[in-house]
Amino acid sequence: MAESQMELPVQPSRSEIRSGFRDSSADHTLRNFHARLTLGQEFISSKFDSLDYDAAENSIYLHRSRKTNYKMYSFDLVRRYFCFAVLGAITGTIGAGANLSIHFIAHDKNGFLAKLGNECNLEFGCLLPLFLWWMGLLLIIVFIGVFTVTYIEPGAAGGGVSGVVAYLNGANIPRIMNAPVVIYKVVSMICTCISGITGGKEGPMIHIGAVVGANMVMVPRKLTDTCCKAFHFDNEIRDMVAGGVAAGVAAAFASPMGGLFLSIEESVSFLSVSLMIKIFIAAMSSSWCANLIMSLHSDEPGNPGSVDVLYMGIITPGELSYTYYEIPIFILIGTISAFFGAAWVLIQKFATVKRRKYIGTNKHKKLLDGLVVVILTGVSHFALTIFWQECRQFSSVYGEGEQALSHGCPEGYKKDLTFFTLNTGEASLRWLIHEDPESISTLAVGVLLVLYFSLAMYTTGLSMAIGIFVPNLLLGALWGRFIVSLLYVHTPDFANTVNAKKYIYLAAAAQLCGTLRLTFSTVVIMMEVVGNNFMVLPLMITIMAARIVGDLLSPPQFELQLILSGFPFLPPDAPPFSSETRVESVMNRDVSTLPPQISVRVANQTLSETHGGFPIVNRKGTLIGFVLRKDIFVLLKYKIFVADNYDMDELEKIFSREFKRPISNLSFSEAELQKNVDLEIIMNPSPYAVKPNMSLARAYKLFRNLGLRHVIVVDTEFKPIGILTRKDLAKFHASFSGITGLPIV
Amino acid sequence: MAESQMELPVQPSRSEIRSGFRDSSADHTLRNFHARLTLGQEFISSKFDSLDYDAAENSIYLHRSRKTNYKMYSFDLVRRYFCFAVLGAITGTIGAGANLSIHFIAHDKNGFLAKLGNECNLEFGCLLPLFLWWMGLLLIIVFIGVFTVTYIEPGAAGGGVSGVVAYLNGANIPRIMNAPVVIYKVVSMICTCISGITGGKEGPMIHIGAVVGANMVMVPRKLTDTCCKAFHFDNEIRDMVAGGVAAGVAAAFASPMGGLFLSIEESVSFLSVSLMIKIFIAAMSSSWCANLIMSLHSDEPGNPGSVDVLYMGIITPGELSYTYYEIPIFILIGTISAFFGAAWVLIQKFATVKRRKYIGTNKHKKLLDGLVVVILTGVSHFALTIFWQECRQFSSVYGEGEQALSHGCPEGYKKDLTFFTLNTGEASLRWLIHEDPESISTLAVGVLLVLYFSLAMYTTGLSMAIGIFVPNLLLGALWGRFIVSLLYVHTPDFANTVNAKKYIYLAAAAQLCGTLRLTFSTVVIMMEVVGNNFMVLPLMITIMAARIVGDLLSPPQFELQLILSGFPFLPPDAPPFSSETRVESVMNRDVSTLPPQISVRVANQTLSETHGGFPIVNRKGTLIGFVLRKDIFVLLKYKIFVADNYDMDELEKIFSREFKRPISNLSFSEAELQKNVDLEIIMNPSPYAVKPNMSLARAYKLFRNLGLRHVIVVDTEFKPIGILTRKDLAKFHASFSGITGLPIV
Repeated sequence: MAESQMELPVQPSRSEIRSGFRDSSADHTLRNFHARLTLGQEFISSKFDSLDYDAAENSIYLHRSRKTNYKMYSFDLVRRYFCFAVLGAITGTIGAGANLSIHFIAHDKNGFLAKLGNECNLEFGCLLPLFLWWMGLLLIIVFIGVFTVTYIEPGAAGGGVSGVVAYLNGANIPRIMNAPVVIYKVVSMICTCISGITGGKEGPMIHIGAVVGANMVMVPRKLTDTCCKAFHFDNEIRDMVAGGVAAGVAAAFASPMGGLFLSIEESVSFLSVSLMIKIFIAAMSSSWCANLIMSLHSDEPGNPGSVDVLYMGIITPGELSYTYYEIPIFILIGTISAFFGAAWVLIQKFATVKRRKYIGTNKHKKLLDGLVVVILTGVSHFALTIFWQECRQFSSVYGEGEQALSHGCPEGYKKDLTFFTLNTGEASLRWLIHEDPESISTLAVGVLLVLYFSLAMYTTGLSMAIGIFVPNLLLGALWGRFIVSLLYVHTPDFANTVNAKKYIYLAAAAQLCGTLRLTFSTVVIMMEVVGNNFMVLPLMITIMAARIVGDLLSPPQFELQLILSGFPFLPPDAPPFSSETRVESVMNRDVSTLPPQISVRVANQTLSETHGGFPIVNRKGTLIGFVLRKDIFVLLKYKIFVADNYDMDELEKIFSREFKRPISNLSFSEAELQKNVDLEIIMNPSPYAVKPNMSLARAYKLFRNLGLRHVIVVDTEFKPIGILTRKDLAKFHASFSGITGLPIV
Repeated sequence: MAESQMELPVQPSRSEIRSGFRDSSADHTLRNFHARLTLGQEFISSKFDSLDYDAAENSIYLHRSRKTNYKMYSFDLVRRYFCFAVLGAITGTIGAGANLSIHFIAHDKNGFLAKLGNECNLEFGCLLPLFLWWMGLLLIIVFIGVFTVTYIEPGAAGGGVSGVVAYLNGANIPRIMNAPVVIYKVVSMICTCISGITGGKEGPMIHIGAVVGANMVMVPRKLTDTCCKAFHFDNEIRDMVAGGVAAGVAAAFASPMGGLFLSIEESVSFLSVSLMIKIFIAAMSSSWCANLIMSLHSDEPGNPGSVDVLYMGIITPGELSYTYYEIPIFILIGTISAFFGAAWVLIQKFATVKRRKYIGTNKHKKLLDGLVVVILTGVSHFALTIFWQECRQFSSVYGEGEQALSHGCPEGYKKDLTFFTLNTGEASLRWLIHEDPESISTLAVGVLLVLYFSLAMYTTGLSMAIGIFVPNLLLGALWGRFIVSLLYVHTPDFANTVNAKKYIYLAAAAQLCGTLRLTFSTVVIMMEVVGNNFMVLPLMITIMAARIVGDLLSPPQFELQLILSGFPFLPPDAPPFSSETRVESVMNRDVSTLPPQISVRVANQTLSETHGGFPIVNRKGTLIGFVLRKDIFVLLKYKIFVADNYDMDELEKIFSREFKRPISNLSFSEAELQKNVDLEIIMNPSPYAVKPNMSLARAYKLFRNLGLRHVIVVDTEFKPIGILTRKDLAKFHASFSGITGLPIV
């Protein structure tokens, strides 16, 4: 940014800007785009650049197109369908494998602890070994989970959803899309789910699906040069990633339509019907595969319809009837969830800032962070399991956990909190929704609510594959049940007329939206996970309330993560008042233009520049095209110097092979440095060019809707006078977040 | 089109082109874009122009933006939510009113005929009056339905979905969006549904919702100048129309999520998450209102959850279990539906061509056409009712139609076809799905299948508000039941092990997709109308098969209608090989440029031109902006001549008031004709300008993704040398349809 070249009449100080952003009524600050650009600068990491989803139509691209006949064109369409089906099958298989592993390992681990616990009668002599086993197992599991993502593959850390969203939006974050991420993420995710810490598998499964999608054509390419050439474009890979997201959700939630719609909701800037069909295929294929594999340990092996992965349990239509008198209650549930959601987001913001300050990138400290989680979770869960002496009779089928302890209880009774502490998150969720209100005391639910929320706040930022879908569903179910329990205690007559299941189910759904602000994908997922649609209207109104109130209180969790991670993210809508600002006042005036032919020496120098591409100008300085830096690199690497004729077939092969190869240093002999390279063969002859007086609002639309990386700003004689990049636009969004004092890592 | 200016090496003759398009492997023909443009010309009606979804950011627009503060900006957002909720409420109320009217009138009419029928014992003396009543009632109903849309409001004809899709795509078809269409469409739709002819209410309800959306801000504007100024842009109206589509589906199908997704599937080129939220609100509001109103005649008045508008009836999860052995059956069902769907589309194409030839726009002939439908439907239904003497015992709750005749049958038995002929389409559908296979004979179903398909083929093109969703569902249910019946007759042992409901339900769903090719909205709608999601995987695979096989056999029904209607429609993807053609070879070279200030005389002349807008150039001929013809008209109408200062507030009011006013003739005194008008105040200073060597594929993307109407083509000195319009691009698509010899009306 050449800041000095910009003159603005009033330039507020940084602190003025910040207070202005916090008080969003300060119009003049909002309108000062230059100030916002400067402030936003702090939040966009220089590590990430943008992807170009607009294919560069250079002569090599055209050569390939001309070679294509209609048969090949149709074959490519079929091949794409096939690719998406395979993508779904791989993701579904991984998901089913992970689900089964979690199921069996958690069952064995909790069963072992429950057996020890039931044999022990609260005497110190046997409590100590139980405690040691308890903590030891937890420690080993969390250690593996944290170690994997911290020391081996940092790309696998966290839920991963925000990175995927940024990638779909057009930010290039290569590390998180590396193929090995799949393996380590699966390991870490299994550890999260079996350990009993507050985390789920849904976020990681979305990330895993996305990585599978990103590598579907990249891995075979390493085996053979001729494979998948048609897919070697950023936008093709992006489409596959969108398909992978849907496949991941389909596998994790048993919700194929929910997967499709989550993918739509997260990646809507570039959707077309044909892409949606492909995403649909991926989600369907993933669901079929996952269900088939998981059916192998069900009552009817090989019957995909027999799998009970619907993790809310079946709620019958009769239990879900409602009247319009309940609309205020639905809105109230949404509003409560919005407050919990905003608290979640704001505490996470605080926690991330603190973690970055005190832990940073230090790996050992991250491991230590995991130890803290082990101690907090292990000790508190152990204490509740052993010393919480309330016995209840579980009524619902979902309460028949064999792991629940019963010592000191009458025949048929069990200690009520042990079902929670000795089970996976999904099982606890089913139990919370379906159990009769009398089976759990208000105090117990209250304690669980406070404990779970506190643990979740600390655990979520851990360097481990941790999803926040299930924790949010559980949080919603907990406060839902807490309120229901209170009603039962204080107004038993009234409470008995109400069906509690419905409200707890709604509270869980609302909380998912209250924190993540996904709207209709939440509705579809929640419809799919209980197997019926009778609640669609109450769900819609509850979730809409959660979204609207939530948006007033805090940004969505993923958006916060995007900003905290410094990803250059373009929001769906241009910032307010951006139609008043012109492109010239924010564009980058430091443009390096190149002539159509340059010497190897000059070309080699361009590789060390930070620009992603260069406008090509003729002798009069008029814009005639645009070349990408990575294409110059390929020209140089293969020593393709100026010639009368180029072997276009050979060039096509080379450029396809070198797609996505990172730029490295090249060395040339002195004689070679004197030669020329011809940029015209790699030049896009019609880059998007705009005039400096175009409004920022329309430039935004152009970038978002076409997935662009740069737009060249030209004067009235078509001479380049500036470049506007995706990153420049992303800065406004970040400046608006109100986050201060956060060092970018 | 200045055809003479284009030189192409080989120009095939028209017949060569046509045979080339039919044989799609003829690459050279496909690649000859000029030929396709010329051929496509025939299919695009000159009556329709395009909408501009890219707001013209002229000085008046900027003035409005500058006056806005953050509070007003936020208030506008809230007001939009509110508008969509009201839109949903209005549409839902209309839908509920229509549903109730149809329910009661059809009940009374059929009850009356059944009573007459039961009193009569197949003797001529009473059969004649029955026949006369039968035909007379049908005649009156169809007459009202046809008369309304033929003589009073032609915009209300047909299903209306294709017009709405074209509007959302960017084609300006003003007649079909007029406010009175709502009233006449409702009347005609009620007639369709109560008459018993083969037509449904879903398409008309979508159209009605869209019209309500289009007039939400236009009708109040007539009452007060100050209302809804913020919505006076083409793109705001378009958003409302998309919301209206969702609201219409929500009201007609009792499927709010299906409405949202149908709107997404049909209008995906301009979606953003914020728009989807608004559409979601409209669909939700429509469903709540419709359910509440319809609940007034249910068991529990005022209880929106009690309404049984789920018109497939409840299918229990147990009836829907499946195994993976059935995958080939699902695919087979999809394939069969694709063949029926393709037959539907191709016969409709033939019928439309013939209707246009023999009926054209002659209103009396249209009325006569209705008479033919009355005779065909009335006589065949009467004959089946009276003379088809097979008695069955109806087993399912949905077969307990009190209207079914029983004369000549044993106690408890009824004549099986009378349930079909004396009932609405939705009731027949429930009966076909739920009735035990023994209750209807194979022959009876076979006769119904042939009869229904033949009647549907004739009736669909009638000049009346006729939807094709229910006819397709019924068609699917009929052939599904026919196959099931055959199995029962020939392999009773095998057939008894199979649950027929599931397959008939799938066949109905598949047929909807086989004809209309809506994919995931069909899945969501079919999930919502039976109330559970256990069939989501079989539905997905069946519908995907229907879509893929169908696309090989014929275009989708709506696309055919779009082309037959001559609407300038831009498909989601650019045509094959369009990256090889450049903008210069298809652009319109006949550009009228204007200087920034012109005399009233010249300005007045521009109003009679066909161009929608004019590039503004400076003295050197360089492009400096773009003005719309309709804005010049407003300048002239209000005699806003060149001045030193303009009252921007006044201008803003005027332009807001004149939004969408059609251009008419103006008269000026000689003195006024000498004065100048200043185009700079209405000029968009940064129109999209591209170079002549941009590929057609990228131009396509630009138009589709940004909703543009024109792009100016400039030379290297920024001088306009051509204009590319939406219509130019739409022609390729039409040329590809293989339709020949069709006069555009």
